[in-house]
Amino acid sequence: MSAFRTIWTTEDHYVEVIDQRKLPHEWVVEKLISYKDAERAIKEMVVRGAPLIGATAAYGIYLAAKEGADLNEAFADLRLSRPTAVNLFWALDRMKAKLAGATDLVQTAWEEAAQIVEDDVETCRMIGVHGLPLIEAISKKKRGETVHILTHCNAGMLGCIEWGTITSPIYQAVQKGIKVHVWVDETRPRLQGANLTCYELTRHDVPHTLIVDNQGGHLMQHGMVDMCIVGTDRTTRQGDVANKIGTYLKALAAHDNHIPFYVALPSTTLDMTIRDGLKEIPIEQRNQNEVRYVVGKSKITGQLDEVLICPETTQASNYGFDVTPARLVTALITERGVCNASEEGLLKLFPEYN
Amino acid sequence: MSAFRTIWTTEDHYVEVIDQRKLPHEWVVEKLISYKDAERAIKEMVVRGAPLIGATAAYGIYLAAKEGADLNEAFADLRLSRPTAVNLFWALDRMKAKLAGATDLVQTAWEEAAQIVEDDVETCRMIGVHGLPLIEAISKKKRGETVHILTHCNAGMLGCIEWGTITSPIYQAVQKGIKVHVWVDETRPRLQGANLTCYELTRHDVPHTLIVDNQGGHLMQHGMVDMCIVGTDRTTRQGDVANKIGTYLKALAAHDNHIPFYVALPSTTLDMTIRDGLKEIPIEQRNQNEVRYVVGKSKITGQLDEVLICPETTQASNYGFDVTPARLVTALITERGVCNASEEGLLKLFPEYN
Repeated sequence: MSAFRTIWTTEDHYVEVIDQRKLPHEWVVEKLISYKDAERAIKEMVVRGAPLIGATAAYGIYLAAKEGADLNEAFADLRLSRPTAVNLFWALDRMKAKLAGATDLVQTAWEEAAQIVEDDVETCRMIGVHGLPLIEAISKKKRGETVHILTHCNAGMLGCIEWGTITSPIYQAVQKGIKVHVWVDETRPRLQGANLTCYELTRHDVPHTLIVDNQGGHLMQHGMVDMCIVGTDRTTRQGDVANKIGTYLKALAAHDNHIPFYVALPSTTLDMTIRDGLKEIPIEQRNQNEVRYVVGKSKITGQLDEVLICPETTQASNYGFDVTPARLVTALITERGVCNASEEGLLKLFPEYN
Repeated sequence: MSAFRTIWTTEDHYVEVIDQRKLPHEWVVEKLISYKDAERAIKEMVVRGAPLIGATAAYGIYLAAKEGADLNEAFADLRLSRPTAVNLFWALDRMKAKLAGATDLVQTAWEEAAQIVEDDVETCRMIGVHGLPLIEAISKKKRGETVHILTHCNAGMLGCIEWGTITSPIYQAVQKGIKVHVWVDETRPRLQGANLTCYELTRHDVPHTLIVDNQGGHLMQHGMVDMCIVGTDRTTRQGDVANKIGTYLKALAAHDNHIPFYVALPSTTLDMTIRDGLKEIPIEQRNQNEVRYVVGKSKITGQLDEVLICPETTQASNYGFDVTPARLVTALITERGVCNASEEGLLKLFPEYN
């Protein structure tokens, strides 16, 4: 069980979230009173991570019901708060279906939002249950010596409610007394590894070391990494995996050095309608200033600041994700179990897609 | 020919260098009056890059002679200014040998330092002469369309005197009217790509785009890179290459996508006494704060500042270099020609090591 959750309800029946834009430097809690607060929290990236966005939107509908707002308007506003978040639509549709036949809208929305939260917690917990034996096996093979795990970006509890995806097996291993150490890729440009993964591992007392994204290959060449685990935004029918830019480079290095490379995912990220991730997943370009500037806490002022790292006139390119082909993925870790990164492997666990 | 040099003499017979720690944000020239100025410039990284350090030390000896300092002391002080810089020792030994039989110490030192500078310029120019046809061939194959070249770190003119190593073929291609575009890896942790390579490409009007180190693999998967060229600090007898951390990851991606991966080097970086780079080249760990902090120009104050990117308590690991095995290197580009990354290839060009 995590040390905290990313969203919770208050005694006076409102909702609170952490302003994740300020992590790891400041812990600021934001109280959501109106559905407009929830909308803004999603839009301005106070909350991030697909499951957490979904949960925030669900509670947004509850807040709309509570304040007597026009529910249709609230659904429409929340749907527009992050246009690319598939999980957001899924959560809103689930709320809409539940509210359709309800008599007490406020109570029904309150309960359904809570259920969405608990469902995510359980999904993440089960990813940990299935992933734990993989860590355990390496620990045994090393006769109890520390298992070194490399990860990229933040597929941790901060993007979910509790446990997280890749962190769930890690937290459960630590609770079982298995010695682990995590190499955390800083994950430029937005530094989710340095900002968020380091933060949550610190809060959970998990030994970890920050590295630049350039360093993982060297560590793998020298036997300093026992396994990699990363998350994913979208997994195709043949097991190709779209994840934060740079994941592919680590998968190549793991493959070159015979190190297992696992991808942890809730089945909600499966997209069984496409096969070839490289050809079929469009990769968006994000704002170039995410590359040109780096955000952090100023040594001079002690305040959050941004520093320019290149000439004023230099332009940058900024693709958000890359695709790791299934051939480089050792296995997928889902809430239903571990399977090969292939159509056959996925269909064994998820026969409903047959 | 480059738009400027990195070290030059003044009318009153002193020496000037650029304070490279302030690039790309400020252009500050430092005048070296005493050999102690040269020592400090090397020690405090006002100048960096093996050839430039060597040239600065050589002029340091000239300044010592000019001011009538104890030459033995000057040799000893300069030798200690950057203990790991092989090129520094080479340049000082060359100055010492030349001064041994000299009658006019000042004039001899002046001429020999100038010769060391001109020799480096010629070496870099020749790397360009031999590397140019590789770019030209791709340009022809693409019927004159832009050749996209990816590079890592700064193996440019800023570390040398003029031309640079990997930039020499690029500058010569541009001068010949060949359309090129350079993808510049920012090169964390010290950001030599963002700070220095972007700066010198800007000064030479070479089209370029800054990218995070995570992005190169994605670009290669999608046909957006035609060739990679990187520099090296040390090349072994079998063609293994030690270069800035992260080079290995790019070599893996180039190999996986059938993109040529070239290493440009002056033969002074050959170390024919060792074979297996992975086993025989020790990789130093640098200060962890290079990872934990990022240096740049503050958006708030407009001044150079450092921002912390992780929790205060998080520790970082910081290996400076990695080794790219010869099997991933398409060819080496030297001042004597292009050869296979192998003992056989190297001995053809450098039979004196037979």
